[in-house]
Amino acid sequence: MGNEFRLTDLAARVGARLSGEGDSLVTGVAPIDDAGPGQVTFLASPKYNRAALGSRASAIVAKERLEGSQAAFLLSDNPVYTFACVVELFHPPVRPAAGVSPLASIHPGARVGKDVSVAPFVFIGEGAAVGDRTALQPGVFVGEGASVGDDCLLYPNVVLYHGVRVGNRAILHAGCVIGSDGFGFAPSREGYRKIPQVGTVEIGDDVEIGANTTVDRAALGVTRILRGAKLDNLIQVGHNVVIGSDTVIAAQAGLAGSCRIGNRVMIGGQAGIGGHLEVEDGIMLGAKCGVANTLRASDGKVWSGIPVMAHQTWLRMSMLLPKLPDLFRRVKRLEEGKNPKGEE
Amino acid sequence: MGNEFRLTDLAARVGARLSGEGDSLVTGVAPIDDAGPGQVTFLASPKYNRAALGSRASAIVAKERLEGSQAAFLLSDNPVYTFACVVELFHPPVRPAAGVSPLASIHPGARVGKDVSVAPFVFIGEGAAVGDRTALQPGVFVGEGASVGDDCLLYPNVVLYHGVRVGNRAILHAGCVIGSDGFGFAPSREGYRKIPQVGTVEIGDDVEIGANTTVDRAALGVTRILRGAKLDNLIQVGHNVVIGSDTVIAAQAGLAGSCRIGNRVMIGGQAGIGGHLEVEDGIMLGAKCGVANTLRASDGKVWSGIPVMAHQTWLRMSMLLPKLPDLFRRVKRLEEGKNPKGEE
Amino acid sequence: MGNEFRLTDLAARVGARLSGEGDSLVTGVAPIDDAGPGQVTFLASPKYNRAALGSRASAIVAKERLEGSQAAFLLSDNPVYTFACVVELFHPPVRPAAGVSPLASIHPGARVGKDVSVAPFVFIGEGAAVGDRTALQPGVFVGEGASVGDDCLLYPNVVLYHGVRVGNRAILHAGCVIGSDGFGFAPSREGYRKIPQVGTVEIGDDVEIGANTTVDRAALGVTRILRGAKLDNLIQVGHNVVIGSDTVIAAQAGLAGSCRIGNRVMIGGQAGIGGHLEVEDGIMLGAKCGVANTLRASDGKVWSGIPVMAHQTWLRMSMLLPKLPDLFRRVKRLEEGKNPKGEE
Repeated sequence: MGNEFRLTDLAARVGARLSGEGDSLVTGVAPIDDAGPGQVTFLASPKYNRAALGSRASAIVAKERLEGSQAAFLLSDNPVYTFACVVELFHPPVRPAAGVSPLASIHPGARVGKDVSVAPFVFIGEGAAVGDRTALQPGVFVGEGASVGDDCLLYPNVVLYHGVRVGNRAILHAGCVIGSDGFGFAPSREGYRKIPQVGTVEIGDDVEIGANTTVDRAALGVTRILRGAKLDNLIQVGHNVVIGSDTVIAAQAGLAGSCRIGNRVMIGGQAGIGGHLEVEDGIMLGAKCGVANTLRASDGKVWSGIPVMAHQTWLRMSMLLPKLPDLFRRVKRLEEGKNPKGEE
Repeated sequence: MGNEFRLTDLAARVGARLSGEGDSLVTGVAPIDDAGPGQVTFLASPKYNRAALGSRASAIVAKERLEGSQAAFLLSDNPVYTFACVVELFHPPVRPAAGVSPLASIHPGARVGKDVSVAPFVFIGEGAAVGDRTALQPGVFVGEGASVGDDCLLYPNVVLYHGVRVGNRAILHAGCVIGSDGFGFAPSREGYRKIPQVGTVEIGDDVEIGANTTVDRAALGVTRILRGAKLDNLIQVGHNVVIGSDTVIAAQAGLAGSCRIGNRVMIGGQAGIGGHLEVEDGIMLGAKCGVANTLRASDGKVWSGIPVMAHQTWLRMSMLLPKLPDLFRRVKRLEEGKNPKGEE
Repeated sequence: MGNEFRLTDLAARVGARLSGEGDSLVTGVAPIDDAGPGQVTFLASPKYNRAALGSRASAIVAKERLEGSQAAFLLSDNPVYTFACVVELFHPPVRPAAGVSPLASIHPGARVGKDVSVAPFVFIGEGAAVGDRTALQPGVFVGEGASVGDDCLLYPNVVLYHGVRVGNRAILHAGCVIGSDGFGFAPSREGYRKIPQVGTVEIGDDVEIGANTTVDRAALGVTRILRGAKLDNLIQVGHNVVIGSDTVIAAQAGLAGSCRIGNRVMIGGQAGIGGHLEVEDGIMLGAKCGVANTLRASDGKVWSGIPVMAHQTWLRMSMLLPKLPDLFRRVKRLEEGKNPKGEE
């Protein structure tokens, strides 16, 4: 905090076009309902036009000027992106100070980079490697032979099982578990025998993984989360899954073993994706949907439902579900030779 | 344990009406199938009448006497509540002994109240505050500037990110994460740019949050869980969500960003609630349902299905789903001019 | 690693029939696409026949020889099981070295067996017991009076609440929580009153529990997971649930309070099972299904859908859902006295 900008300077820094008075000083950001003088806010959609008109904010980031507003506007073709830049100017990322706590447990055979922050109660195992400027918050576990790249931020109690590899600039939220055993058992007459899960996990650069999400190690080979993918909280990623670059997955989604998710895929919350199938680049999956077959982008971009169908079909279908009891009655009447109005 | 009561005294203490012999001593509680002499049990519903008749318990908490039972009855208009009081008499809450472990890491700039219990491996950051008589079990993380009120109980490995605020008498179960970053990214040609999540979380008095549940901090502003709300395990609460007072949410439910849940709402397990919508006071949502639009209490109190419809409609609809293949055949026959019996 | 076997020896050790050259040395296992000379791979299903034909692996574990392949075959009636044995020969389980870290916190009144491994930041409470050769990784919490059997492996940050009991050879993955309070509250005019959860949890021998899975203690009595059951990640097990022997539950499934799951049941990912009902021995439940009533094996072995129906019915039904808008149109035409082709 403590940062302040003249609007003209702010606009220049974030590459926005300023419309309105440029001399005002702004000192922070706030939600559209709460923003007051000296603050910048954001008009996310026309749905909030009324709130924007009533806002006392000094400036509004938006796609276009809103007629009737007293505020200055910071205009941009990609206002979400511009607003992200504005927020970051007022709230530059704060990293824990560099330093290694004497209350951490670091194996002498581990390599720890420059300017790292290792908090109390962190465990770093034999042969593990932690890159420069990476911060490990309290309770983080870096297993034997595991590696974390440069400029990463691991929140409290993140667990990296032995041998997993994390790239640069990754952000792993509290309690996420990377490299737990995949779920593989061979049935026999005496019960199940564990199939040793001897693969690993590789997480690319610029990946962010949410709190308490779990990513299983491969049975053989590698479970991969490619560069720039963003995973929300409480997601399950099964063994041998591949998640493509810049793919975004909302909370509580589940990806069964060996499924392959393309690049720039978007997956809604609580969605489930079956094992050994593929979801091609750029596909969007609705919240709570269930995918039981490979989805080709050429067959459609947006899918919803259990099991999935074209999103538009699902919208129509789901509006009819409540009318199903009535439909059964109507068919019965037709079978009885009655007309729909009930007259014989 | 070790407590024992005469039934007349027990009835008086919990405000129940005693029906039966009052001199018996009771020494504990047990499930209806296992309870023996000297124990008190609970008749939750008429479904268990038979078990109750066969029970050897000395006393049964219930709404009314069960004819034919040999047991004494502790009668109450709210037998669940009365039983909760009975259990508590036999099992008064045990709090960890006060004291601060030398194995904890407490920043000198943190404020710690009176009679707190701080276990080994607890981390309390700069500017954080912990209220009187609050217990932090091993591995708890209280981030910079975060605060916890009086008489709270934080089970092992609870994580409070920087700045989050927890009220009094809150119970946070193991592994829950409060204040992780909301899921917000701005798309650009070079991939996603993180929208800094600079808001916080406020949790009211008497809130209970289950194991491994995650509550994201607001993008801007505050994610709020109001007084008396109870959240089960593995729930996802997105950024800027508001959960009203005395609202109860079952395990694995997911609340997307900026949704507003009213007071005294009940949400079933694995339910999903979309972003930026409202669920009004007193509404009940069935397990596994999917809410994609604002729900007004004036439109109905109980909702189920994906997407939600009136619960009664959903019950009828869902019983018809297995008959859908048959309905398609019947319509085909009608189109072919055949009667439903298949005669031409 | 470092193990190598002649194929004839390997076949003998795992009880497979060798078909092909037996003198080759093999040194490891690999996925079918990656395997090269000196490696053994696995033909899981005919779907991968083509990959198997192209594979350069020295040997393939399979049910029968694949015509045209150059590889040797290790044939077995239960190839998954045989492959599990092969993998284990190359990757024998590695347990953390025995020893008790001086950075652990062990109550003097706890019993710790022989040859245990207790890592830094482990907490073992008063009256707790840890069996011989059991390994507790960093951050594990064993509450007051809790017990863990022999030869168990508890990954980082596993939490065992007070009094819970874990059998022998159990594997508990990172962040799983055993014995958190069941979700029980009595409504009253002043809000909810907590029903003290005074039961416990018992976990049988040879059980494996996935990362961040939560198992609640019973309200009264015992939540039980019987011998050999395997639970994946992020599963919720409510209070007083019983899970039978050799039952397998995929990730993110949820079991509501007091439900009873039989032996050798298989439950798909994200499935939900309601409270106070039964799923009989040997039943299979599809991914994402919702069980709202007791399921008898005599009524069917495989169930899917929300709510569940016979799996075959569900398959047919779900293929018709996208055609529902069309069906409504067809019925309307019939009501209007038009024929299906649209001519009047």
